[in-house]
Amino acid sequence: MSVTRCLVAQEEVQKFIEKCMLTVGTRASHARSLAEVLVEGDKRGHYSHGLNRMDLYIKEIKAGICAKDGEPVVERESAATALVDGRNLLGPVVGNFCMSLALRKARDVGIGWVVARGSNHYGIAGYYALQAVKENMIGMSFTNTSPLVVPTRAKECTLGTNPISVGAPAKDGDSFVLDMATSAVALGKVELHDRSGLSIPEGWGCDAQGRLSTEPSQVLQGGGLVPVGGSETTGGYKGYGLGMMVEVFCGMLAGSQYSRHIRTWRVTDRAANLGQCFVAINPENFAPGFNDRMSDLLSLHRSLEPAEPEKPVLVPGDPERLHEEECRSLGGIPYHLSVVNYMNDVAKSIGVTSLLPADRVIH
Amino acid sequence: MSVTRCLVAQEEVQKFIEKCMLTVGTRASHARSLAEVLVEGDKRGHYSHGLNRMDLYIKEIKAGICAKDGEPVVERESAATALVDGRNLLGPVVGNFCMSLALRKARDVGIGWVVARGSNHYGIAGYYALQAVKENMIGMSFTNTSPLVVPTRAKECTLGTNPISVGAPAKDGDSFVLDMATSAVALGKVELHDRSGLSIPEGWGCDAQGRLSTEPSQVLQGGGLVPVGGSETTGGYKGYGLGMMVEVFCGMLAGSQYSRHIRTWRVTDRAANLGQCFVAINPENFAPGFNDRMSDLLSLHRSLEPAEPEKPVLVPGDPERLHEEECRSLGGIPYHLSVVNYMNDVAKSIGVTSLLPADRVIH
Repeated sequence: MSVTRCLVAQEEVQKFIEKCMLTVGTRASHARSLAEVLVEGDKRGHYSHGLNRMDLYIKEIKAGICAKDGEPVVERESAATALVDGRNLLGPVVGNFCMSLALRKARDVGIGWVVARGSNHYGIAGYYALQAVKENMIGMSFTNTSPLVVPTRAKECTLGTNPISVGAPAKDGDSFVLDMATSAVALGKVELHDRSGLSIPEGWGCDAQGRLSTEPSQVLQGGGLVPVGGSETTGGYKGYGLGMMVEVFCGMLAGSQYSRHIRTWRVTDRAANLGQCFVAINPENFAPGFNDRMSDLLSLHRSLEPAEPEKPVLVPGDPERLHEEECRSLGGIPYHLSVVNYMNDVAKSIGVTSLLPADRVIH
Repeated sequence: MSVTRCLVAQEEVQKFIEKCMLTVGTRASHARSLAEVLVEGDKRGHYSHGLNRMDLYIKEIKAGICAKDGEPVVERESAATALVDGRNLLGPVVGNFCMSLALRKARDVGIGWVVARGSNHYGIAGYYALQAVKENMIGMSFTNTSPLVVPTRAKECTLGTNPISVGAPAKDGDSFVLDMATSAVALGKVELHDRSGLSIPEGWGCDAQGRLSTEPSQVLQGGGLVPVGGSETTGGYKGYGLGMMVEVFCGMLAGSQYSRHIRTWRVTDRAANLGQCFVAINPENFAPGFNDRMSDLLSLHRSLEPAEPEKPVLVPGDPERLHEEECRSLGGIPYHLSVVNYMNDVAKSIGVTSLLPADRVIH
């Protein structure tokens, strides 16, 4: 499958998204926060959570389903915890608010555990964990999402891809950054195989009868993704349990929507009211030498002899690091030309005239 | 494979383990704590972490590799966190100490995050999460363990089966209890297939070259378990990342041994110095109605139509609940006769005369 790609400078994407969001009435600082998270998603290679989703955010702001302005509100608080009402603001606005609150608490008492209700899609979960890593703390973030995953033994989607992100700082700016859906793969991967006429590996999704299927169309039409681990025999019930754990931290603690009660993916007829959880932990409250041990743990793994010589052993966060390096060496973020063209059409439809450049084509 | 089983009353196993531990010099309260965790493991059907391991604990106490007496010590503390030196005491002694400290903090400030170094095998991780559930709180526990798992793309074991346990209370004594290794399966399952001459499903383990193998002997001799998710294609890197996350919470925060530096499984020539992490979260610090939502989440899943009629959809903790019910209806815990006989031999070898009854045979 050959796909034409074009390069766009990070600042250009950032400004473009900001401009589009401003045009539909989003407060400037909120537009900036959203653009920052989406660009970070693209830079880290998580394209399904970047520019690619801008049209959904625009649609929700335009339809009045997501709030254009306001501030999240702390509803309940202790030295180490908080419950936040996200006031139906853009996910990144809620996420940044909660993560900086968690960091403040972690500085004071070693940990901050902050839960938000009334939130919306917040981009890549790793973005929030990384905010803690920059402050030399462990960061975590979790969100519930629209049902796309079929529990072990069932045949109906009741859980979202409910991601888990955990970041931890090592020495010299190095870090561990786990950022994973609790499904085996993202829906986008199945869609991509479907469009290319390819079958999918066993263990990604199931059909409408709950049977594992290698046929992407069966997964997309009436079936669903399966939890990481695949079938019950290979440990799929663990991925199912982890997806439900995310729901405990999010919907259960937050009193937001949860599980099957969350609106269907891409259906935006009502506020999402997602539940999210943000955690910061200060290693200084524990044994001295945390960063040194982290660096040893990472290098111990990176220096393992690989099973296949051309595939080096990585640690969580390395694939994203490699993608960021690629962007730096290319001098921009590579996008599918079709995505750039589509988003330019979206921009034009709302009256934005400064479009993304589509002329730096690469192959 | 037909295995002769015999029933032993819970109190009988409890007393037997206590007596054996006392005989080799363990302080009475420590012997009781260990016996309680092991019996709970068996009752919940996690036989690999029950009576079955008594000989290892005895060996370590006898060899002076694990401390017979003393108390864990808090080394560093805030309102919400603590670092504990486990003083090389039995894992359950350290675990109980840390979990009750975490619960106290959660009552005060909504969360307690307690990390221990200098600990030993602590039985099933779920035991500690359940202590929080009994107090109507969310509980979590994590431990690092001897290297048995081969990271994605590698061919050498560097991580333990590093379990994650998360428990959360619903209404009327019901609960969510996730208690899972971050490997696809436990080593014991592979050993069982090996002894029975059966092949294992793809996605459980790999050979010495890091290739997935369905041959148990290859996994056991030079190969290793693989992380939940199996191959890289089916998301094995997620299980690998989760295993490393457990190491961040345990070895990294604790300053204990970690990863490949932990002594090899069943080799007991030196203190284990394991790192462990215990967390309690008070739902009362978050949105009202937590237990109601938990009950809805659980019943929503249990009432899903199953893909195969004879296999009802379960939630994490249900398999253990079913096993406990089986024990109740049988009037005892069913053990393999060979395990009972073996442990009686162990007991005799240290001079214990009151042995486990082996006469209530069932099939």
